[in-house]
Amino acid sequence: MVGIGLIGSGFMGKCHALAWTSVRAVFGDAPEVRLVHLGEANTALADTRAREFGFARASGDWRAVVDDPDVDIVSITAPNRFHAEMAIAALEAGKHVWCEKPMAPEFAAAERMAAAAQASGKVAALGYNYVQSPSIRHIGALLAEGAIGAVNHLRIEMDEDFMADPDAPFFWKHEASSGYGALDDFAVHPLSLIETLFGRVARVMCDMAMPYPERRTAEGGRRAVETYDVASTLLRLENGVSGTLLANRSAWGRKGRLQLQIFGSKGSIVFDQERFNELKLYVTSDRPTEQGYRTILSSPHHEPYGSFVPAPGHGLGFNDLKTIECREVLARIEGRQARLIDFASGLEIERTVHAMARSFREGRWVDVRQERPRNG
Amino acid sequence: MVGIGLIGSGFMGKCHALAWTSVRAVFGDAPEVRLVHLGEANTALADTRAREFGFARASGDWRAVVDDPDVDIVSITAPNRFHAEMAIAALEAGKHVWCEKPMAPEFAAAERMAAAAQASGKVAALGYNYVQSPSIRHIGALLAEGAIGAVNHLRIEMDEDFMADPDAPFFWKHEASSGYGALDDFAVHPLSLIETLFGRVARVMCDMAMPYPERRTAEGGRRAVETYDVASTLLRLENGVSGTLLANRSAWGRKGRLQLQIFGSKGSIVFDQERFNELKLYVTSDRPTEQGYRTILSSPHHEPYGSFVPAPGHGLGFNDLKTIECREVLARIEGRQARLIDFASGLEIERTVHAMARSFREGRWVDVRQERPRNG
Amino acid sequence: MVGIGLIGSGFMGKCHALAWTSVRAVFGDAPEVRLVHLGEANTALADTRAREFGFARASGDWRAVVDDPDVDIVSITAPNRFHAEMAIAALEAGKHVWCEKPMAPEFAAAERMAAAAQASGKVAALGYNYVQSPSIRHIGALLAEGAIGAVNHLRIEMDEDFMADPDAPFFWKHEASSGYGALDDFAVHPLSLIETLFGRVARVMCDMAMPYPERRTAEGGRRAVETYDVASTLLRLENGVSGTLLANRSAWGRKGRLQLQIFGSKGSIVFDQERFNELKLYVTSDRPTEQGYRTILSSPHHEPYGSFVPAPGHGLGFNDLKTIECREVLARIEGRQARLIDFASGLEIERTVHAMARSFREGRWVDVRQERPRNG
Amino acid sequence: MVGIGLIGSGFMGKCHALAWTSVRAVFGDAPEVRLVHLGEANTALADTRAREFGFARASGDWRAVVDDPDVDIVSITAPNRFHAEMAIAALEAGKHVWCEKPMAPEFAAAERMAAAAQASGKVAALGYNYVQSPSIRHIGALLAEGAIGAVNHLRIEMDEDFMADPDAPFFWKHEASSGYGALDDFAVHPLSLIETLFGRVARVMCDMAMPYPERRTAEGGRRAVETYDVASTLLRLENGVSGTLLANRSAWGRKGRLQLQIFGSKGSIVFDQERFNELKLYVTSDRPTEQGYRTILSSPHHEPYGSFVPAPGHGLGFNDLKTIECREVLARIEGRQARLIDFASGLEIERTVHAMARSFREGRWVDVRQERPRNG
Repeated sequence: MVGIGLIGSGFMGKCHALAWTSVRAVFGDAPEVRLVHLGEANTALADTRAREFGFARASGDWRAVVDDPDVDIVSITAPNRFHAEMAIAALEAGKHVWCEKPMAPEFAAAERMAAAAQASGKVAALGYNYVQSPSIRHIGALLAEGAIGAVNHLRIEMDEDFMADPDAPFFWKHEASSGYGALDDFAVHPLSLIETLFGRVARVMCDMAMPYPERRTAEGGRRAVETYDVASTLLRLENGVSGTLLANRSAWGRKGRLQLQIFGSKGSIVFDQERFNELKLYVTSDRPTEQGYRTILSSPHHEPYGSFVPAPGHGLGFNDLKTIECREVLARIEGRQARLIDFASGLEIERTVHAMARSFREGRWVDVRQERPRNG
Repeated sequence: MVGIGLIGSGFMGKCHALAWTSVRAVFGDAPEVRLVHLGEANTALADTRAREFGFARASGDWRAVVDDPDVDIVSITAPNRFHAEMAIAALEAGKHVWCEKPMAPEFAAAERMAAAAQASGKVAALGYNYVQSPSIRHIGALLAEGAIGAVNHLRIEMDEDFMADPDAPFFWKHEASSGYGALDDFAVHPLSLIETLFGRVARVMCDMAMPYPERRTAEGGRRAVETYDVASTLLRLENGVSGTLLANRSAWGRKGRLQLQIFGSKGSIVFDQERFNELKLYVTSDRPTEQGYRTILSSPHHEPYGSFVPAPGHGLGFNDLKTIECREVLARIEGRQARLIDFASGLEIERTVHAMARSFREGRWVDVRQERPRNG
Repeated sequence: MVGIGLIGSGFMGKCHALAWTSVRAVFGDAPEVRLVHLGEANTALADTRAREFGFARASGDWRAVVDDPDVDIVSITAPNRFHAEMAIAALEAGKHVWCEKPMAPEFAAAERMAAAAQASGKVAALGYNYVQSPSIRHIGALLAEGAIGAVNHLRIEMDEDFMADPDAPFFWKHEASSGYGALDDFAVHPLSLIETLFGRVARVMCDMAMPYPERRTAEGGRRAVETYDVASTLLRLENGVSGTLLANRSAWGRKGRLQLQIFGSKGSIVFDQERFNELKLYVTSDRPTEQGYRTILSSPHHEPYGSFVPAPGHGLGFNDLKTIECREVLARIEGRQARLIDFASGLEIERTVHAMARSFREGRWVDVRQERPRNG
Repeated sequence: MVGIGLIGSGFMGKCHALAWTSVRAVFGDAPEVRLVHLGEANTALADTRAREFGFARASGDWRAVVDDPDVDIVSITAPNRFHAEMAIAALEAGKHVWCEKPMAPEFAAAERMAAAAQASGKVAALGYNYVQSPSIRHIGALLAEGAIGAVNHLRIEMDEDFMADPDAPFFWKHEASSGYGALDDFAVHPLSLIETLFGRVARVMCDMAMPYPERRTAEGGRRAVETYDVASTLLRLENGVSGTLLANRSAWGRKGRLQLQIFGSKGSIVFDQERFNELKLYVTSDRPTEQGYRTILSSPHHEPYGSFVPAPGHGLGFNDLKTIECREVLARIEGRQARLIDFASGLEIERTVHAMARSFREGRWVDVRQERPRNG
């Protein structure tokens, strides 16, 4: 019986709650979990959400969650700027931590998180849930067995349109203090896929753009935007593979696009998160007259799809990815192999983002390993 | 606090369990539910599943679930031939019933279920979950507002390939006692969509086919197949609309296809369950130079998508449809409007299936209203 | 050097002219053709089109084309009701005939055409150009080699929206004298594909519908429509395969849809004329983990694509299909194997259409072989 | 009556021949053309092709074509390294020139071509046929009317797989003397689209890669490859728009991909040459509940589709694009507005390619206007 604490109850907080609620029913072999303590910004909200999500206790102070002796794992879904303090406190209190991405706006804070994780000996996982889909897992398996030969080129795009409206007012995501823009919001997801499927990024050359350099303020004036909705990056992986990583959070029409194009010596793979129950595979081992991309629907052949639905092609949903991630967190705690971006890997993702930003500022290729972000 | 009993823990049993587990976390305003009692074919299995799914009690006899005074609603997911007995017992015990489709292999049994439901005054709902997707709901809204004008023609196809392998052995679904074949397995789903979106079927003309008239037996012999994997039906709705309903459970490559094509005087709508987070809409009110099918991704604009994910285009999964259905069952119990196929509507769906079978046997159009199945 | 006569210069007349103009440049090994004589409804139009299309002579009377001693082949693209008279005259004058589909509104006229063709010993081909695409040819090759095993079920849909506007006025295609409606306009094309790929239709059961039972007249009144825009047919082929053929010329949003779904014991094939440079193939010989529809782009692997473009995936156009058909007509004249619907096959297609209409009128299955249309 | 000379009769030579053969039949209002003189590498081949394509005269020396007094326009489709000499000779002989892209491997040669064109006062057009499709034209019209607001970001990809096989032997396209690789082969096409739709490129930052750094030789040895199959470029247009241009001629599975993604303040447009009869449009003026990409099939609404086929959605082919280009060449000669990449624009495209190559060599952003290629 594992005791769960949850800090935050918004988009991702609810997503964690649903994962904890259903993980054992889905997987059967997962340990029993108890929803112990939910923390929110104030007691009233904490009470409401605890009732909705089924947590036994509620607090308006997140420290009560971290300090609760019945809590074994803390899910952290509060705004990014609180991640470091919360995660470090939880790890120091001897809890396992499952924290939403990215780690922290300041690289130094992320470094402290990674250090705390290492010191604690506890599981410290990040919520990069896109790496968990059965399709992405199967892509990993295909690459490992050489189904498309040696990979030589890679393209990733991540696009949504939540910043695309030029008439929407200036808000905190337009301030430099929130980060770089598309790099923080989006590029980290593609980087988690690269980390999972291909290894580390060696060098980057990035360009960033502001579709709308100023926006109206709530007060009726105009204010200069300080973050970049568009970030386009040329990159080289440590294994020599070349590629591009393109991100745009002002891309009208794109809602949850995360497209992968992977080219190898014997075929290619195409995947788009907007249709994440499908993957496309082209292999030269097919007869030339019938070569073409196969659209492969997720099925029980692709783990862990079958734990959700025994029938192929019926489809998982976004929230199911978090439930899979939850199972991986538990597996890691049990000492088993697990597919997770932990704090150490997450730190390298953030280092890469800072290297991208530097390459844009300085108009040159930047070596990720040598990047030592001061305050990024 | 609503007490839940669950009979059966296979594909659909697990699906119900997940729905009960998450319905309140997803919807917030749903009543609190308590997982009271799980019934399975034997005590050992019941115990295992109760632990996995989080039910407090377990029994090897389903009657214990029905009789449990703490149970308010009984989810019935046992094999079809047990539905009638279980549902009637539950209703007579004063429970609400949420029973998987179809009602019963024998029409007379389905009639008894409908009668028991009416006599009980309790909610008696069927698990036709495809009517619950945000896309189908939005199609309903579009039709209601006349977005494509007056509907004049309709095509539905439902195809999977779980019976497509000619080398798979004979089993109980090949016996006539299991029903007609594709008609029972599949046609009822399209009929639930017709019922929800368009109204009732008036006349039918059906053809059925056996792709593999005999199959090997486990004992090494051959045996004649008695059910039809393919059923193709011409139909007329009571409102005069013409259409076709085509079903094939031996359709290699199709995994969960349920395609709708709806033609109206001002546009058309196309939908496929294999990509149920999308719907396609063509309207003549678009400028002629830019007319084309729009691919509309499910989003918080399409209820109740936003209760699951606040971000558009991120996608629901098959199991989420059951959670929506679960919310509707609770809403109906609360006396609110709900989108459900209840036992009365379900009976008409089954009457239509029997009329289809008769039209095939007799090679003629059959009037559904006049169909009085004897033993079908 | 082969002399060409062309009767008619509208949609299909231009299409024939382009085919004759380019056939030798495309195929290289085709005989040299000379554009000799173009006939139209009047001399002025004939002169204009002859100049545009590059014909040496022009006449306002089609008989001049048929009688021209320099003409070896007559392309007939005049309205359907003139086909019989023109084709028979041309055949009797010792010309080869390439006539647009369908043969004739009256079955007796089509019979006379077939008889004249047989008596003449000349090539008498019909313009069923959809059978000519590299995709359809490759489907034929795949079926022949058993790539999807034994075919057991078939669905064809043909839909356009040129009759979909309820506000368009009554015109001759709404009169019964023009034929049945969708059956003549559309169903003949699917039947040409069935003839080419699978063989003959044995039995049919058809339903027809009028989306708009009356229409405004040019004079400001209303008039009852006499033809059916929708025709849906259950069918059985002579080889026992079951299937459906669905046609709708009032299908908003569909522009040139002609979808084939072919199900076999080892796979399936899906094709849509709106993307006729692609075909989809699912085979169970692929590893289960990677089974899925392959989207195969037309390429030089698929004859005669390479005669048009040596690069794969660059795409043929609608007019190219007529050029391929033209090459087949010439090949047949040269005494070589050719893929063509000749007058004898065309007659069976029309017999099937009349059987469909009868099955609708009489509400019963009709045996195509026994159909003896009186005046249809 | 316009006299045509054709130099070269391979892939593009045949394509030009087909365009000349059919341009008047397609467009009606085009001037009459006479196929006068075909030049090839030797007399025998020239004779054969002249017969196939319908040219009156044939020569084994291209100068005979250029000098032929009956020739008004010279189509040049010989290998790139001959373009300059041929085009300049033709222009100096007072002929109009329609030359395949790109202009010349050496920038200085391209400069001489542009100078000769200007001095001649004749039409000097390049064969960038992808700008001619009805879809691309319609995209231009949509952008001009502001259908997607102000464009702020642009992505273009061009991919094929003709160099993707690692086991194919070394040949001349792997030698540095042939150019840079994907930049020359592919990037020029996207640049022609940028030129046509958006204007000129201001700055570029390119990375190039060799998927297979060495290849076997025909003699049985191994040889280092000198050209780059992959080229990825960050770019800024003169109007401030940011974008990327990604090219890969070793992209297994891609056959004729040329994908455009255009993002604006009020919508977006997506296009792929592999399905060039379709374009996708997303506009925020649609009701939020129904926003989605519309798939718009080419139709007579999109000029000049209707000149080929009066029925929408029936599809043009690759060769038809060259026929449209041919009509534009004739229109320009007639002194009318025409959509063409002339030698002056083509020179800027080649300057941009050289700037890309320099930015790769020097690892920095390069200003296109300041690029003065020495020997590129």
